[in-house]
Amino acid sequence: MTQTPYHTLDANGIRDLIAGLPDVATRLGGASAQWQVREVSDGNLNNVFLVGGPAGEVCLKQSLPHVRVDPSWKMPLDRTFFEAAWLRAVLPLVGGLTTECLFFDRDLYVLIVESLSGHTVLRTALMQGADWPGVAPRIGTFIARAAFGTSLLARPFEEVFTTRRTFAANLALTRITLDLVLDDPYRDHPRNHWHDPVLTPIVLDIRSSAATLLAVENLRRRFLSQPQALLHGDLHTGSIMSTPDDTRVIDGEFAVYGPIGFDCGMFVGNLVLHYFAMPDHAARKATLRDIGAFWNSFHEQFMGLWNANEAPPPGTLRPLAYGPAAHVAQQTFMEEILGDTIGFAAIEIIRRIIGYAHTADFDIIADRQQRAACRAGALAFAYHVLDHLNEFHTINDFLYFLDEQGQAGL
Amino acid sequence: MTQTPYHTLDANGIRDLIAGLPDVATRLGGASAQWQVREVSDGNLNNVFLVGGPAGEVCLKQSLPHVRVDPSWKMPLDRTFFEAAWLRAVLPLVGGLTTECLFFDRDLYVLIVESLSGHTVLRTALMQGADWPGVAPRIGTFIARAAFGTSLLARPFEEVFTTRRTFAANLALTRITLDLVLDDPYRDHPRNHWHDPVLTPIVLDIRSSAATLLAVENLRRRFLSQPQALLHGDLHTGSIMSTPDDTRVIDGEFAVYGPIGFDCGMFVGNLVLHYFAMPDHAARKATLRDIGAFWNSFHEQFMGLWNANEAPPPGTLRPLAYGPAAHVAQQTFMEEILGDTIGFAAIEIIRRIIGYAHTADFDIIADRQQRAACRAGALAFAYHVLDHLNEFHTINDFLYFLDEQGQAGL
Ligand SMILES: Nc1ncnc2c1ncn2[C@@H]1O[C@H](COP(=O)(O)OP(=O)(O)OP(=O)(O)O)[C@@H](O)[C@H]1O
Ligand SMILES: Nc1ncnc2c1ncn2[C@@H]1O[C@H](COP(=O)(O)OP(=O)(O)OP(=O)(O)O)[C@@H](O)[C@H]1O
Repeated sequence: MTQTPYHTLDANGIRDLIAGLPDVATRLGGASAQWQVREVSDGNLNNVFLVGGPAGEVCLKQSLPHVRVDPSWKMPLDRTFFEAAWLRAVLPLVGGLTTECLFFDRDLYVLIVESLSGHTVLRTALMQGADWPGVAPRIGTFIARAAFGTSLLARPFEEVFTTRRTFAANLALTRITLDLVLDDPYRDHPRNHWHDPVLTPIVLDIRSSAATLLAVENLRRRFLSQPQALLHGDLHTGSIMSTPDDTRVIDGEFAVYGPIGFDCGMFVGNLVLHYFAMPDHAARKATLRDIGAFWNSFHEQFMGLWNANEAPPPGTLRPLAYGPAAHVAQQTFMEEILGDTIGFAAIEIIRRIIGYAHTADFDIIADRQQRAACRAGALAFAYHVLDHLNEFHTINDFLYFLDEQGQAGL
Repeated sequence: MTQTPYHTLDANGIRDLIAGLPDVATRLGGASAQWQVREVSDGNLNNVFLVGGPAGEVCLKQSLPHVRVDPSWKMPLDRTFFEAAWLRAVLPLVGGLTTECLFFDRDLYVLIVESLSGHTVLRTALMQGADWPGVAPRIGTFIARAAFGTSLLARPFEEVFTTRRTFAANLALTRITLDLVLDDPYRDHPRNHWHDPVLTPIVLDIRSSAATLLAVENLRRRFLSQPQALLHGDLHTGSIMSTPDDTRVIDGEFAVYGPIGFDCGMFVGNLVLHYFAMPDHAARKATLRDIGAFWNSFHEQFMGLWNANEAPPPGTLRPLAYGPAAHVAQQTFMEEILGDTIGFAAIEIIRRIIGYAHTADFDIIADRQQRAACRAGALAFAYHVLDHLNEFHTINDFLYFLDEQGQAGL
């Protein structure tokens, strides 16, 4: 603990801080004056720096008392606390699929993790045309392990309740999810915005469809009232850094207990956004493959952990029923997760097109009108999915409909 | 705060404590040496005393470091803390339907509430033949107000999450509910017991029916993973004190966030136990009436609060959809509560007959064989309900089947 009152660190402040942390300083090597400090903040919320020395590099993240891109939007500092707590909770479960936590200080709200300087943010890589078939299944594995391992299936309820208590204090960021993801887009709100007039009629359809609004209400209720597992809470393609062979989930500051399908849905929704931004159907096929591979990997890993009979998980929710009945219960649970996945994917697509925080995916399309048409395709897809949520029973129902809509839009 | 380290209070200790509490002492009147201290503990867990003076009386409850009726079963002291926290949370919501909290001390774990010396524990009153039609609807009102008012329908999620955090620490008593109510009866466990051999085949049926075990698993999962509202957590007829005209819910030490139907089900389950202990069908009719009146009152009050349009509740889960669609959502929610109510009622019946903590209801039946037959009737009823849970869609389905089974058993 530094015992230094909070202040925003600049490059020299960062050097001084790390000079006092022998473990981190050793990673960098050399003298602190030599260390290169490079700002890489590209998200909305925090300051992020890479600090390099002759022997290695680390990544330092500091919360600001406001939203980084909008200093008038005040925000408590504790978000790096929750990111550090999330890292500590999931790291032992997911092995190499996130970053090591090297240091956290609760006065400065500074978190230091290993640097991933050879990795690219997945959204950027996808926009640059990367086709890395290993990434999506690795994310499936990541969610399966993190979710199963923090759930009542794997842990005594006492531990789960205690961890829930920690993350139930993550109020500021949970409020952001609630407002920006699950509420604003379905009302007139000044934070919403979209340029292309072709989107407007679809927005009006979304806001006047009873089935869609009921689906959104239900998913919002589930987000707040189904604490199945510790979620990442913001698992879009910008929260993943990867090479073809090594994939890491970063930025867990939105962590909260919730429905497992929320994380799955965020990821799938962002793959769908990428899908609609791709120039032709052949290029889109890889994304269909990725979504399928993601779900299959998630499903297989989750079931594998659940049925690890040699060392049955010591969770409070160990089964009473055995044999075929136990399989029925597992299937019902997995179907519930799939329903959430598809619903939250649609919600993520909608908010990324008409809400506050858009994504860059569609920027690869040079032609303005074509870009608008692709956005409209994605928005109409998400609308239809929410409006007919009960009709999607398998991941293939979802992929088939996506393929159909994708072909129709080209 | 007394700052006195914990010790178990005797009559003199109680007088000394209250002498130092001007507000409480004034209620009693006179000098502390005059105060009568009378032990009334009859539950399993705590010491309970009535303290009377010339002007009035109060009730004092102190946690012991063990289960009162089994000193070898160690238990943390914090249960009166949760009872005090529960009282503070629900008192403003339910008006006169519980007791006022006069004092709580976290060193001694002493809770002082108003005395209900003119009231009778409801189970005792029912066993003595009381027919008080006002009680069940008052309990319906109590649950509706306490549940609605602590839910996301009435409160911003920040308040709900904060209150959930408080009660998610109630681990020792939640563990008791999990083990004694939701687990032991479905396995061989030394805490289970029953004398009447006529029950044994039904127990074996329960434990070998896949549908029943899946229903129990599902309810256990819902108990731990559906934090809809702050529950009383132990709302049996021994946690209610009443006169014909005034009804109070006491003993909220099991309070935890959970599915609203858990509280409803505990109460209904205990009415069903009483039903099967009644000597003839005419006598049973009053209980059928009470269960119906309870549910209708709960339903009406809950919907009334939800649809209070003049001052719409400021909860985070305010609806997006209006008109008929909003009614669909409400109906779905109420059906979910009814399903839980019926399921948890069956679970409560089973554990009160074959689990650790039985109830006295059947003691009014003098004949040993008849008593066994009545218990068997109740147990078989609960078994059938769990085994066919999906077939009960309304409270009348439940009452009709109860009436049928009740007639068959006489
Ligand atoms: N461990 C790391 N190694 C290298 N670069 C990193 C690392 N962590 C983050 N970055 C870079 O910093 C950027 C911002 O990081 P991050 O997404 O954690 O910040 P944020 O402000 O919390 O973002 P958001 O607003 O999306 O929550 C990333 O997009 C990435 O380019
Ligand atoms: N406010 C009160 N006024 C008068 N008598 C009371 C009051 N509260 C409790 N009692 C009496 O004391 C008895 C025990 O109280 P209570 O049920 O709260 O104790 P407990 O040990 O927590 O019980 P349990 O083991 O069921 O949880 C009641 O059954 C009732 O007879």
